Amino acid sequence: MPTQTRSDQRRARTRAALIAAAQKLLAERRTNVPVLEITRLADVGLGSFYNHFTDKDELFETAVDEALERFGSILDLLSDHEDPAVVFGQSLRLTVRLCRREPALTRVLLHRGLEITVADRGLVPRARRDIDAGIAAGRFRNTDSRIAVSIVGGGALSLAALLDADPSLDADAAADDFAINILCMLGLSDSDAVEICRMNLPDVDDLLVRTESA
Amino acid sequence: MPTQTRSDQRRARTRAALIAAAQKLLAERRTNVPVLEITRLADVGLGSFYNHFTDKDELFETAVDEALERFGSILDLLSDHEDPAVVFGQSLRLTVRLCRREPALTRVLLHRGLEITVADRGLVPRARRDIDAGIAAGRFRNTDSRIAVSIVGGGALSLAALLDADPSLDADAAADDFAINILCMLGLSDSDAVEICRMNLPDVDDLLVRTESA
Repeated sequence: MPTQTRSDQRRARTRAALIAAAQKLLAERRTNVPVLEITRLADVGLGSFYNHFTDKDELFETAVDEALERFGSILDLLSDHEDPAVVFGQSLRLTVRLCRREPALTRVLLHRGLEITVADRGLVPRARRDIDAGIAAGRFRNTDSRIAVSIVGGGALSLAALLDADPSLDADAAADDFAINILCMLGLSDSDAVEICRMNLPDVDDLLVRTESA
Repeated sequence: MPTQTRSDQRRARTRAALIAAAQKLLAERRTNVPVLEITRLADVGLGSFYNHFTDKDELFETAVDEALERFGSILDLLSDHEDPAVVFGQSLRLTVRLCRREPALTRVLLHRGLEITVADRGLVPRARRDIDAGIAAGRFRNTDSRIAVSIVGGGALSLAALLDADPSLDADAAADDFAINILCMLGLSDSDAVEICRMNLPDVDDLLVRTESA
Protein backbone atom coordinates (compact mmCIF):
# COMPACT_ATOMS: atom_id res chain seq x y z
CA MET A 1 0.00 0.00 0.00
CA PRO A 2 1.52 3.38 -0.95
CA THR A 3 2.36 5.71 1.93
CA GLN A 4 0.06 8.72 2.18
CA THR A 5 2.03 11.93 2.10
CA ARG A 6 1.05 14.90 4.21
CA SER A 7 -0.26 16.65 1.07
CA ASP A 8 -2.35 13.57 0.15
CA GLN A 9 -3.91 13.71 3.59
CA ARG A 10 -4.70 17.40 3.28
CA ARG A 11 -6.19 16.80 -0.15
CA ALA A 12 -8.40 14.02 1.19
CA ARG A 13 -9.52 16.20 4.10
CA THR A 14 -10.49 19.03 1.72
CA ARG A 15 -12.48 16.65 -0.48
CA ALA A 16 -14.26 15.14 2.55
CA ALA A 17 -15.11 18.63 3.88
CA LEU A 18 -16.60 19.64 0.52
CA ILE A 19 -18.68 16.45 0.37
CA ALA A 20 -19.91 16.90 3.96
CA ALA A 21 -20.92 20.50 3.13
CA ALA A 22 -22.76 19.30 0.01
CA GLN A 23 -24.60 16.62 2.00
CA LYS A 24 -25.65 19.25 4.54
CA LEU A 25 -26.99 21.50 1.75
CA LEU A 26 -28.76 18.54 0.09
CA ALA A 27 -30.41 17.58 3.37
CA GLU A 28 -31.62 21.19 3.75
CA ARG A 29 -32.72 21.33 0.08
CA ARG A 30 -30.41 24.32 -0.45
CA THR A 31 -28.47 23.19 -3.53
CA ASN A 32 -29.11 26.47 -5.36
CA VAL A 33 -26.12 28.25 -3.75
CA PRO A 34 -22.91 29.62 -5.29
CA VAL A 35 -19.69 27.59 -5.07
CA LEU A 36 -18.29 30.26 -2.77
CA GLU A 37 -20.95 29.44 -0.16
CA ILE A 38 -20.10 25.75 -0.37
CA THR A 39 -16.37 26.38 0.16
CA ARG A 40 -17.14 28.73 3.07
CA LEU A 41 -19.33 26.06 4.66
CA ALA A 42 -16.57 23.50 4.15
CA ASP A 43 -13.99 26.00 5.47
CA VAL A 44 -11.71 25.56 2.44
CA GLY A 45 -10.44 28.03 -0.18
CA LEU A 46 -12.55 28.72 -3.26
CA GLY A 47 -9.70 27.64 -5.57
CA SER A 48 -9.36 24.22 -3.97
CA PHE A 49 -12.94 23.38 -5.04
CA TYR A 50 -11.80 23.08 -8.64
CA ASN A 51 -8.90 20.78 -7.71
CA HIS A 52 -11.58 18.22 -6.82
CA PHE A 53 -14.73 18.91 -8.84
CA THR A 54 -15.41 20.48 -12.22
CA ASP A 55 -18.69 22.03 -11.04
CA LYS A 56 -21.44 21.94 -8.41
CA ASP A 57 -23.36 19.18 -10.19
CA GLU A 58 -20.37 16.85 -9.95
CA LEU A 59 -19.98 17.62 -6.24
CA PHE A 60 -23.66 17.01 -5.43
CA GLU A 61 -23.70 13.80 -7.47
CA THR A 62 -20.62 12.57 -5.59
CA ALA A 63 -22.23 13.54 -2.28
CA VAL A 64 -25.30 11.39 -3.05
CA ASP A 65 -23.10 8.51 -4.26
CA GLU A 66 -21.08 8.60 -1.06
CA ALA A 67 -24.24 8.64 1.10
CA LEU A 68 -25.45 5.54 -0.78
CA GLU A 69 -22.07 3.85 -0.43
CA ARG A 70 -21.97 4.63 3.29
CA PHE A 71 -25.27 2.76 3.76
CA GLY A 72 -24.06 0.01 1.44
CA SER A 73 -20.78 -0.49 3.29
CA ILE A 74 -22.71 -0.92 6.54
CA LEU A 75 -24.83 -3.67 4.96
CA ASP A 76 -21.64 -5.36 3.74
CA LEU A 77 -20.65 -5.91 7.39
CA LEU A 78 -23.64 -8.21 7.95
CA SER A 79 -22.42 -11.71 8.49
CA ASP A 80 -23.14 -14.22 5.74
CA HIS A 81 -25.91 -16.74 6.29
CA GLU A 82 -26.61 -19.78 4.18
CA ASP A 83 -30.28 -18.82 3.75
CA PRO A 84 -30.57 -15.94 1.22
CA ALA A 85 -33.93 -14.98 2.76
CA VAL A 86 -32.19 -14.35 6.11
CA VAL A 87 -29.46 -12.29 4.40
CA PHE A 88 -31.97 -10.11 2.53
CA GLY A 89 -34.31 -9.84 5.50
CA GLN A 90 -31.46 -8.53 7.67
CA SER A 91 -30.48 -5.99 5.02
CA LEU A 92 -34.03 -4.68 4.80
CA ARG A 93 -34.48 -4.47 8.56
CA LEU A 94 -31.15 -2.69 8.96
CA THR A 95 -31.68 -0.25 6.09
CA VAL A 96 -34.89 1.15 7.56
CA ARG A 97 -33.31 1.36 11.03
CA LEU A 98 -30.41 3.33 9.53
CA CYS A 99 -32.87 5.84 8.11
CA ARG A 100 -33.93 6.70 11.66
CA ARG A 101 -30.35 6.75 12.97
CA GLU A 102 -28.94 8.85 10.11
CA PRO A 103 -31.67 11.39 9.31
CA ALA A 104 -29.32 13.80 7.49
CA LEU A 105 -27.96 11.11 5.12
CA THR A 106 -31.54 9.87 4.64
CA ARG A 107 -32.68 13.35 3.63
CA VAL A 108 -29.87 13.43 1.07
CA LEU A 109 -31.33 10.28 -0.47
CA LEU A 110 -34.94 11.51 -0.20
CA HIS A 111 -33.96 14.75 -1.90
CA ARG A 112 -32.52 12.77 -4.80
CA GLY A 113 -35.71 10.73 -4.69
CA LEU A 114 -36.75 8.05 -7.12
CA GLU A 115 -33.60 8.40 -9.22
CA ILE A 116 -31.69 6.33 -6.69
CA THR A 117 -33.95 3.34 -7.34
CA VAL A 118 -32.21 2.98 -10.72
CA ALA A 119 -28.72 3.88 -9.42
CA ASP A 120 -25.88 1.47 -10.16
CA ARG A 121 -24.16 2.14 -6.83
CA GLY A 122 -25.22 1.75 -3.23
CA LEU A 123 -28.25 -0.13 -2.05
CA VAL A 124 -30.13 -1.01 -5.24
CA PRO A 125 -27.47 -3.23 -6.88
CA ARG A 126 -26.97 -4.97 -3.51
CA ALA A 127 -30.73 -5.62 -3.25
CA ARG A 128 -30.87 -6.97 -6.78
CA ARG A 129 -27.90 -9.27 -6.09
CA ASP A 130 -29.63 -10.59 -2.94
CA ILE A 131 -32.94 -11.16 -4.76
CA ASP A 132 -31.22 -12.92 -7.66
CA ALA A 133 -29.34 -15.14 -5.19
CA GLY A 134 -32.63 -16.10 -3.51
CA ILE A 135 -34.29 -16.90 -6.85
CA ALA A 136 -31.26 -18.96 -7.98
CA ALA A 137 -31.38 -20.93 -4.71
CA GLY A 138 -35.11 -21.62 -5.18
CA ARG A 139 -35.84 -19.75 -1.94
CA PHE A 140 -37.67 -16.88 -3.65
CA ARG A 141 -40.40 -17.03 -6.32
CA ASN A 142 -39.10 -17.08 -9.87
CA THR A 143 -39.81 -13.45 -10.74
CA ASP A 144 -38.35 -10.53 -12.72
CA SER A 145 -35.87 -9.08 -10.22
CA ARG A 146 -35.91 -5.69 -12.00
CA ILE A 147 -39.56 -5.18 -11.06
CA ALA A 148 -39.07 -6.64 -7.57
CA VAL A 149 -36.11 -4.37 -6.80
CA SER A 150 -38.05 -1.38 -8.09
CA ILE A 151 -40.80 -2.12 -5.53
CA VAL A 152 -38.25 -2.66 -2.75
CA GLY A 153 -36.41 0.59 -3.58
CA GLY A 154 -39.53 2.71 -3.99
CA GLY A 155 -41.11 1.15 -0.91
CA ALA A 156 -38.01 1.81 1.20
CA LEU A 157 -37.88 5.44 0.08
CA SER A 158 -41.56 5.90 0.76
CA LEU A 159 -41.18 4.40 4.24
CA ALA A 160 -38.12 6.59 4.88
CA ALA A 161 -40.25 9.63 3.98
CA LEU A 162 -42.94 8.42 6.39
CA LEU A 163 -40.37 8.00 9.21
CA ASP A 164 -38.89 11.41 8.41
CA ALA A 165 -42.33 13.03 8.58
CA ASP A 166 -43.45 11.24 11.75
CA PRO A 167 -40.78 11.03 14.49
CA SER A 168 -43.24 9.18 16.74
CA LEU A 169 -43.44 6.18 14.38
CA ASP A 170 -41.64 3.12 15.85
CA ALA A 171 -38.80 2.67 13.32
CA ASP A 172 -37.82 -0.82 14.54
CA ALA A 173 -41.38 -2.13 14.20
CA ALA A 174 -41.81 -0.42 10.82
CA ALA A 175 -38.48 -1.86 9.63
CA ASP A 176 -39.44 -5.42 10.60
CA ASP A 177 -42.91 -5.04 9.11
CA PHE A 178 -41.38 -3.73 5.88
CA ALA A 179 -39.05 -6.75 5.70
CA ILE A 180 -41.92 -9.19 6.37
CA ASN A 181 -43.93 -7.62 3.52
CA ILE A 182 -41.02 -7.87 1.09
CA LEU A 183 -40.17 -11.47 2.04
CA CYS A 184 -43.84 -12.45 1.54
CA MET A 185 -43.75 -10.67 -1.82
CA LEU A 186 -40.77 -12.86 -2.74
CA GLY A 187 -42.75 -15.99 -1.94
CA LEU A 188 -42.11 -16.79 1.73
CA SER A 189 -45.02 -17.77 3.92
CA ASP A 190 -46.18 -15.26 6.50
CA SER A 191 -44.88 -17.43 9.37
CA ASP A 192 -41.44 -17.95 7.77
CA ALA A 193 -41.10 -14.22 7.09
CA VAL A 194 -42.11 -13.34 10.66
CA GLU A 195 -39.63 -15.87 12.09
CA ILE A 196 -36.74 -14.41 10.05
CA CYS A 197 -37.63 -10.88 11.09
CA ARG A 198 -37.54 -11.83 14.78
CA MET A 199 -33.94 -13.07 14.58
CA ASN A 200 -31.19 -11.12 16.34
CA LEU A 201 -29.83 -8.22 14.36
CA PRO A 202 -26.30 -6.79 14.73
CA ASP A 203 -26.18 -3.61 16.77
CA VAL A 204 -26.71 -0.59 14.50
CA ASP A 205 -24.44 1.68 16.58
CA ASP A 206 -21.65 -0.87 16.49
CA LEU A 207 -21.91 -1.12 12.68
CA LEU A 208 -21.89 2.67 12.36
CA VAL A 209 -18.70 2.96 14.44
CA ARG A 210 -16.99 0.20 12.49
CA THR A 211 -17.65 1.83 9.11
CA GLU A 212 -16.68 5.29 10.36
CA SER A 213 -13.21 4.14 11.28
CA ALA A 214 -12.81 2.20 8.03
CA MET B 1 -78.77 20.61 -10.31
CA PRO B 2 -78.29 24.39 -10.75
CA THR B 3 -78.12 25.63 -14.33
CA GLN B 4 -74.67 26.73 -15.41
CA THR B 5 -74.70 30.29 -16.68
CA ARG B 6 -72.52 31.39 -19.57
CA SER B 7 -70.23 33.19 -17.12
CA ASP B 8 -69.95 30.05 -14.94
CA GLN B 9 -68.89 28.15 -18.03
CA ARG B 10 -66.29 30.75 -18.96
CA ARG B 11 -65.00 30.73 -15.39
CA ALA B 12 -64.67 26.92 -15.43
CA ARG B 13 -62.86 27.05 -18.79
CA THR B 14 -60.36 29.60 -17.45
CA ARG B 15 -59.68 27.50 -14.36
CA ALA B 16 -59.22 24.35 -16.46
CA ALA B 17 -56.83 26.18 -18.83
CA LEU B 18 -54.73 27.39 -15.88
CA ILE B 19 -54.58 23.88 -14.42
CA ALA B 20 -53.64 22.35 -17.78
CA ALA B 21 -50.86 24.94 -18.15
CA ALA B 22 -49.62 24.16 -14.65
CA GLN B 23 -49.62 20.41 -15.38
CA LYS B 24 -47.60 21.04 -18.54
CA LEU B 25 -45.05 23.09 -16.58
CA LEU B 26 -44.89 20.45 -13.81
CA ALA B 27 -44.29 17.70 -16.38
CA GLU B 28 -41.46 19.76 -17.86
CA ARG B 29 -40.08 20.59 -14.39
CA ARG B 30 -40.44 24.31 -15.17
CA THR B 31 -42.38 25.51 -12.12
CA ASN B 32 -40.00 28.40 -11.49
CA VAL B 33 -41.77 30.77 -13.92
CA PRO B 34 -43.67 34.04 -13.32
CA VAL B 35 -47.47 34.01 -13.14
CA LEU B 36 -47.51 36.01 -16.39
CA GLU B 37 -45.91 33.09 -18.24
CA ILE B 38 -48.52 30.71 -16.85
CA THR B 39 -51.43 32.92 -17.94
CA ARG B 40 -49.85 33.35 -21.40
CA LEU B 41 -49.49 29.57 -21.72
CA ALA B 42 -53.14 29.16 -20.62
CA ASP B 43 -54.17 31.97 -23.01
CA VAL B 44 -56.05 33.86 -20.27
CA GLY B 45 -55.61 37.36 -18.86
CA LEU B 46 -53.14 37.92 -16.01
CA GLY B 47 -55.90 39.33 -13.77
CA SER B 48 -58.10 36.27 -14.09
CA PHE B 49 -55.38 34.15 -12.43
CA TYR B 50 -56.17 35.79 -9.09
CA ASN B 51 -59.90 35.11 -9.44
CA HIS B 52 -59.02 31.42 -9.09
CA PHE B 53 -55.79 31.08 -7.12
CA THR B 54 -54.05 33.14 -4.45
CA ASP B 55 -50.58 32.25 -5.74
CA LYS B 56 -48.55 29.86 -7.88
CA ASP B 57 -48.15 27.34 -5.06
CA GLU B 58 -51.91 26.95 -4.77
CA LEU B 59 -52.22 26.44 -8.54
CA PHE B 60 -49.48 23.80 -8.68
CA GLU B 61 -50.91 21.99 -5.67
CA THR B 62 -54.34 21.94 -7.30
CA ALA B 63 -52.79 20.71 -10.56
CA VAL B 64 -51.21 17.73 -8.77
CA ASP B 65 -54.44 17.02 -6.87
CA GLU B 66 -56.44 17.00 -10.08
CA ALA B 67 -53.92 14.66 -11.77
CA LEU B 68 -54.31 12.28 -8.81
CA GLU B 69 -58.10 12.56 -8.90
CA ARG B 70 -58.14 11.93 -12.66
CA PHE B 71 -56.34 8.61 -12.10
CA GLY B 72 -58.56 7.88 -9.11
CA SER B 73 -61.81 8.53 -10.98
CA ILE B 74 -60.70 6.06 -13.67
CA LEU B 75 -60.15 3.37 -11.03
CA ASP B 76 -63.62 4.11 -9.63
CA LEU B 77 -65.11 2.91 -12.93
CA LEU B 78 -63.79 -0.62 -12.35
CA SER B 79 -66.68 -2.95 -11.75
CA ASP B 80 -67.08 -4.32 -8.26
CA HIS B 81 -66.07 -7.90 -7.62
CA GLU B 82 -66.83 -9.93 -4.50
CA ASP B 83 -63.15 -10.90 -4.08
CA PRO B 84 -61.19 -7.91 -2.69
CA ALA B 85 -57.98 -9.42 -4.12
CA VAL B 86 -59.48 -9.20 -7.63
CA VAL B 87 -60.56 -5.59 -7.03
CA PHE B 88 -57.13 -4.51 -5.80
CA GLY B 89 -55.29 -6.55 -8.44
CA GLN B 90 -57.27 -4.81 -11.19
CA SER B 91 -56.53 -1.37 -9.71
CA LEU B 92 -52.80 -2.10 -9.60
CA ARG B 93 -52.70 -3.47 -13.15
CA LEU B 94 -54.67 -0.51 -14.47
CA THR B 95 -52.68 2.15 -12.59
CA VAL B 96 -49.37 1.08 -14.12
CA ARG B 97 -50.95 0.85 -17.60
CA LEU B 98 -52.29 4.40 -17.17
CA CYS B 99 -48.74 5.59 -16.46
CA ARG B 100 -47.74 4.49 -19.98
CA ARG B 101 -50.89 5.90 -21.56
CA GLU B 102 -50.73 9.26 -19.77
CA PRO B 103 -47.02 10.14 -19.64
CA ALA B 104 -47.60 13.86 -19.02
CA LEU B 105 -49.90 13.28 -16.02
CA THR B 106 -47.46 10.65 -14.78
CA ARG B 107 -44.59 13.14 -14.93
CA VAL B 108 -46.69 15.54 -12.86
CA LEU B 109 -46.90 12.84 -10.17
CA LEU B 110 -43.22 11.87 -10.50
CA HIS B 111 -42.23 15.50 -10.15
CA ARG B 112 -44.18 15.70 -6.90
CA GLY B 113 -42.51 12.44 -5.97
CA LEU B 114 -42.76 10.65 -2.65
CA GLU B 115 -45.06 13.28 -1.14
CA ILE B 116 -48.00 11.75 -2.98
CA THR B 117 -47.56 8.47 -1.09
CA VAL B 118 -48.88 10.28 1.98
CA ALA B 119 -51.54 12.32 0.10
CA ASP B 120 -55.10 12.12 1.37
CA ARG B 121 -56.58 12.36 -2.13
CA GLY B 122 -56.23 10.27 -5.25
CA LEU B 123 -54.70 6.82 -5.39
CA VAL B 124 -53.26 6.29 -1.92
CA PRO B 125 -56.50 6.49 0.12
CA ARG B 126 -58.15 4.20 -2.46
CA ALA B 127 -55.30 1.68 -2.11
CA ARG B 128 -55.53 1.77 1.67
CA ARG B 129 -59.32 1.24 1.53
CA ASP B 130 -58.82 -1.78 -0.77
CA ILE B 131 -56.10 -3.28 1.45
CA ASP B 132 -58.19 -2.77 4.60
CA ALA B 133 -61.18 -4.41 2.88
CA GLY B 134 -59.03 -7.44 1.98
CA ILE B 135 -57.70 -7.74 5.53
CA ALA B 136 -61.21 -7.43 7.00
CA ALA B 137 -62.45 -10.17 4.65
CA GLY B 138 -59.57 -12.45 5.70
CA ARG B 139 -58.33 -12.51 2.10
CA PHE B 140 -55.12 -10.59 2.89
CA ARG B 141 -52.59 -11.16 5.71
CA ASN B 142 -53.38 -9.30 8.88
CA THR B 143 -50.82 -6.52 8.50
CA ASP B 144 -50.37 -2.79 9.19
CA SER B 145 -52.00 -1.24 6.11
CA ARG B 146 -50.06 2.01 6.60
CA ILE B 147 -46.76 0.21 5.90
CA ALA B 148 -48.28 -1.90 3.10
CA VAL B 149 -49.72 1.12 1.30
CA SER B 150 -46.40 2.92 1.66
CA ILE B 151 -44.69 0.04 -0.18
CA VAL B 152 -47.43 -0.04 -2.85
CA GLY B 153 -47.25 3.74 -3.39
CA GLY B 154 -43.46 3.95 -3.44
CA GLY B 155 -43.23 0.84 -5.59
CA ALA B 156 -45.73 2.19 -8.12
CA LEU B 157 -43.88 5.52 -8.35
CA SER B 158 -40.56 3.75 -8.75
CA LEU B 159 -42.01 1.55 -11.52
CA ALA B 160 -43.55 4.61 -13.19
CA ALA B 161 -40.09 6.22 -13.20
CA LEU B 162 -38.66 3.05 -14.76
CA LEU B 163 -41.35 3.05 -17.48
CA ASP B 164 -40.79 6.77 -18.10
CA ALA B 165 -37.04 6.22 -18.46
CA ASP B 166 -37.32 3.13 -20.69
CA PRO B 167 -39.98 3.39 -23.45
CA SER B 168 -39.06 -0.11 -24.64
CA LEU B 169 -40.18 -1.74 -21.38
CA ASP B 170 -43.44 -3.72 -21.86
CA ALA B 171 -45.83 -1.75 -19.64
CA ASP B 172 -48.58 -4.41 -19.65
CA ALA B 173 -46.20 -7.14 -18.52
CA ALA B 174 -44.61 -4.84 -15.92
CA ALA B 175 -48.07 -3.86 -14.64
CA ASP B 176 -49.16 -7.48 -14.21
CA ASP B 177 -45.85 -8.44 -12.61
CA PHE B 178 -46.17 -5.49 -10.20
CA ALA B 179 -49.69 -6.61 -9.23
CA ILE B 180 -48.55 -10.24 -8.71
CA ASN B 181 -45.76 -9.03 -6.41
CA ILE B 182 -48.13 -6.89 -4.34
CA LEU B 183 -50.79 -9.61 -4.05
CA CYS B 184 -48.12 -12.09 -2.88
CA MET B 185 -46.93 -9.47 -0.38
CA LEU B 186 -50.50 -9.35 0.94
CA GLY B 187 -50.49 -13.09 1.47
CA LEU B 188 -51.84 -14.67 -1.72
CA SER B 189 -50.07 -17.71 -3.14
CA ASP B 190 -48.04 -17.20 -6.30
CA SER B 191 -50.55 -19.24 -8.34
CA ASP B 192 -53.60 -17.35 -7.01
CA ALA B 193 -51.90 -14.01 -7.72
CA VAL B 194 -50.95 -15.07 -11.26
CA GLU B 195 -54.49 -16.27 -11.95
CA ILE B 196 -56.00 -12.94 -10.83
CA CYS B 197 -53.55 -10.99 -12.94
CA ARG B 198 -54.48 -12.97 -16.07
CA MET B 199 -58.17 -12.03 -15.81
CA ASN B 200 -59.69 -9.70 -18.40
CA LEU B 201 -59.18 -6.04 -17.71
CA PRO B 202 -61.49 -3.23 -18.91
CA ASP B 203 -60.15 -1.39 -21.94
CA VAL B 204 -57.93 1.50 -20.81
CA ASP B 205 -58.89 3.72 -23.78
CA ASP B 206 -62.56 3.20 -23.08
CA LEU B 207 -62.10 4.19 -19.41
CA LEU B 208 -60.12 7.29 -20.43
CA VAL B 209 -62.89 8.41 -22.79
CA ARG B 210 -65.60 7.80 -20.19
CA THR B 211 -63.85 9.93 -17.54
CA GLU B 212 -63.02 12.70 -20.02
CA SER B 213 -66.65 13.27 -20.86
CA ALA B 214 -67.68 13.07 -17.20
